[in-house]
Amino acid sequence: MPTRQDDPVTSDPAGDRIWPDLPTLTCVVQPDPVTRDDGSTTRLLVVRLTNPAGDLLDTAVFADLDALGRRLVTQPSIGGVVLTGPRAGVFAPHFRLGEIADGAEALGRPVPYALARAAYVGVAGLSRVDVLRERVLASPAAGIAELVRTHTALTRLGALPQVVVAAIDGDALAGGCELALACDLRVMARGDGRIGLVEVTAAIPPGAGGTQRLVRAVGAARARSMALRATTLDAGAAHDVGLVDEVCEPVDVLDTALRLAADVARRNPAAVHAVKRAMQGGRAFREGLATEGAGFLSTASTPGAIARLRAFAAASDDRGVRTPWRDRTWLR
Amino acid sequence: MPTRQDDPVTSDPAGDRIWPDLPTLTCVVQPDPVTRDDGSTTRLLVVRLTNPAGDLLDTAVFADLDALGRRLVTQPSIGGVVLTGPRAGVFAPHFRLGEIADGAEALGRPVPYALARAAYVGVAGLSRVDVLRERVLASPAAGIAELVRTHTALTRLGALPQVVVAAIDGDALAGGCELALACDLRVMARGDGRIGLVEVTAAIPPGAGGTQRLVRAVGAARARSMALRATTLDAGAAHDVGLVDEVCEPVDVLDTALRLAADVARRNPAAVHAVKRAMQGGRAFREGLATEGAGFLSTASTPGAIARLRAFAAASDDRGVRTPWRDRTWLR
Amino acid sequence: MPTRQDDPVTSDPAGDRIWPDLPTLTCVVQPDPVTRDDGSTTRLLVVRLTNPAGDLLDTAVFADLDALGRRLVTQPSIGGVVLTGPRAGVFAPHFRLGEIADGAEALGRPVPYALARAAYVGVAGLSRVDVLRERVLASPAAGIAELVRTHTALTRLGALPQVVVAAIDGDALAGGCELALACDLRVMARGDGRIGLVEVTAAIPPGAGGTQRLVRAVGAARARSMALRATTLDAGAAHDVGLVDEVCEPVDVLDTALRLAADVARRNPAAVHAVKRAMQGGRAFREGLATEGAGFLSTASTPGAIARLRAFAAASDDRGVRTPWRDRTWLR
Repeated sequence: MPTRQDDPVTSDPAGDRIWPDLPTLTCVVQPDPVTRDDGSTTRLLVVRLTNPAGDLLDTAVFADLDALGRRLVTQPSIGGVVLTGPRAGVFAPHFRLGEIADGAEALGRPVPYALARAAYVGVAGLSRVDVLRERVLASPAAGIAELVRTHTALTRLGALPQVVVAAIDGDALAGGCELALACDLRVMARGDGRIGLVEVTAAIPPGAGGTQRLVRAVGAARARSMALRATTLDAGAAHDVGLVDEVCEPVDVLDTALRLAADVARRNPAAVHAVKRAMQGGRAFREGLATEGAGFLSTASTPGAIARLRAFAAASDDRGVRTPWRDRTWLR
Repeated sequence: MPTRQDDPVTSDPAGDRIWPDLPTLTCVVQPDPVTRDDGSTTRLLVVRLTNPAGDLLDTAVFADLDALGRRLVTQPSIGGVVLTGPRAGVFAPHFRLGEIADGAEALGRPVPYALARAAYVGVAGLSRVDVLRERVLASPAAGIAELVRTHTALTRLGALPQVVVAAIDGDALAGGCELALACDLRVMARGDGRIGLVEVTAAIPPGAGGTQRLVRAVGAARARSMALRATTLDAGAAHDVGLVDEVCEPVDVLDTALRLAADVARRNPAAVHAVKRAMQGGRAFREGLATEGAGFLSTASTPGAIARLRAFAAASDDRGVRTPWRDRTWLR
Repeated sequence: MPTRQDDPVTSDPAGDRIWPDLPTLTCVVQPDPVTRDDGSTTRLLVVRLTNPAGDLLDTAVFADLDALGRRLVTQPSIGGVVLTGPRAGVFAPHFRLGEIADGAEALGRPVPYALARAAYVGVAGLSRVDVLRERVLASPAAGIAELVRTHTALTRLGALPQVVVAAIDGDALAGGCELALACDLRVMARGDGRIGLVEVTAAIPPGAGGTQRLVRAVGAARARSMALRATTLDAGAAHDVGLVDEVCEPVDVLDTALRLAADVARRNPAAVHAVKRAMQGGRAFREGLATEGAGFLSTASTPGAIARLRAFAAASDDRGVRTPWRDRTWLR
């Protein structure tokens, strides 16, 4: 395992950074082993989202999360994962909306719902074969393949044998909320950070599984209300509805998440895997992802949505450090 | 749009009443436009349940709600709907049970569950063709077609591109609760009004989608408990379990509902539509409606249930202003 | 109905014990009739779990629960069931883990997930024919048939025309929690008793439907958290999340459960049956049971899980009065 202790993002000098070829993620194996119930030991992996582009999620991050999941499936030496942001006060603010506009524009015209659903299902089928997926990703239908990859990558997190804990200090809005929902457990720091599906304020629906996961997490009534009204919750309110498992001070968020991850990592990974698989949702969940995906494509490909996404980008700075969601101007 | 400002039910003289051919609904377009995020404007529609027959729900109301939904699908100038009762203190107390007895008796004999399920599925298929539906509605199987139409009409509300907000001041029991559950958001006034699935006290199960929607709204444990025990909740308790989104004073219920509707109506309707569709439930939801429908038919068609429904009607006045649910005598 | 008033477990001398051929259950028909809404009367049945083997659940208990359910389906004179423990402070602590190790070892080798799923589905099909089920139960695949029978027996409780109320005074851990979840309503006494899915601490996932029922009961977020972290809740916390319907003092737990059962038993049993059936979950629920069952088999059949289950048994006394879950040593 290559060590890059010179990397300023690695706060813990004793941790081993692995997988530096995933450019937007900084993956550090924790030095303290976790002793399993059977006496063996395992390690926890801290994955920091370190996208230099304004800390936002984008297709590069999801490509890396996709690769991360594929590697973790066959990494029994790692017993648990904590997913966190690059530094204090920042988790995964949201997805870069300009990229969605680019992908939607590349489709060339609005895609009606029925056609979008057929396209989603077709691309999802093709995407199981790596070489075909690469071809679609290089075509005008790249946006569809990206959407499918996002669904696949997040669903894989929920199906890993390792527990995945989100350590949230800061905003988890829209795509950031959907990423947090795809983790098994969530720790959230008190403070200014908010969590919620706010996509409708940018003229699009959630598109990274959030519609399905929020319904399952907090029930359809609260989920529908949150997504339609673009409700954002602070840590305490998110805890009250069961969306967040532990609330703590910002300075404790990583330690708390590591403690939760260790609590699960000491268990038989086959048992953890079986619990996760049985609770993920099956065919109805996958069908729901297709419904979500088709609605996302048919909505985002309309001129009105593209114009609104462009307006969002225009109201942001180039890197995405200041955006209408991060500064709350579009959340009023 | 024809205006009927002389209609006493239209409290707002500036609103335009539309669709006066729907006799049990008073539909008034609100004068104040809602400015969308893209700068365009839209209008909210207030739909008052104004069935002269004791304010109850009945097949006439569901026929009108069915027609309302069909029209709204193609009414992009309306961005949101508030569904409310005829006057202060009254929402939709419940469905007229005598009509259920009539429909059940017309079937001629108890219909076993398996046959009821086959009949439900068959009539649901036929009902997609308008002319066939009209034939079934004129046959002894009219009760089955009414049941299917109720399911279809309420499912359509949840699939409209417009947000639909229930403004509840008063009781929403049994069918009234099911109607409220079929709306996207619910506002409920403090006071004597109660919400709940109380059908078992009249010897029948819920039959307007309530079994499926309550499970999805508040979880299977609370839903089963509420439906089996005929639990009724006041506004505060309903809010605590997430069944109601906002609680307010009776005098504010319409304004609060209009505010919620405007908050959603200003968003891209395609995005709202996509959120609603992705969160409605898919095949499992439709399968659940068939299970509910078959259980309703097989139960309601037994002599015991018919006798109980007749006893309910006998304990009510002719119009249904006083019934064993409205005066709570059957809810003890 | 044979009476065995000399049986010390029958606290109520006026009750009639029925079905004494179910050795691990003491079934007593309550003397006080419940008057139904239609004026007829019905009786409540108190089923005490009276397994002499340390009060634990085991295959003998589930065989009896399976038989109990088959009889209740055709027992219209019984309108409601209360399921409770043998005495104050004891409900159903958990399943005897040594038996799971026996069944897993008899399979001869670890069963991969895909094969386990095929085996589960196959045995579930065979088990519909009694004579075939008996054959499988006498084969090395007995463990699979036991698993299927557990699922079938608990699903049948949820599909009975009678309401089934769990009266919990004491622990309902792992299999005990799954049994409680399979009941329609739950009453839990204040005190030391805890409820939760703690299976992962013994290297296995829940295997009696708990993964599916907890997700439906309290939502996927809380359910996943509880099962992965082996969270246990006292009566108050279980009530807060909707897992328990009523909390009371230990001395009142049976009376409270009988009151709840009577409240439902006075309704038309066809209506109760229809509510239960419509809220049970359909195809997605059955598919989820197969996923759970396959994960359970593939996990429990590994040497690591078997060793852990044996360690659990070794840390228990022979009867199971003292076990690492009952004394909390494995729950820290």
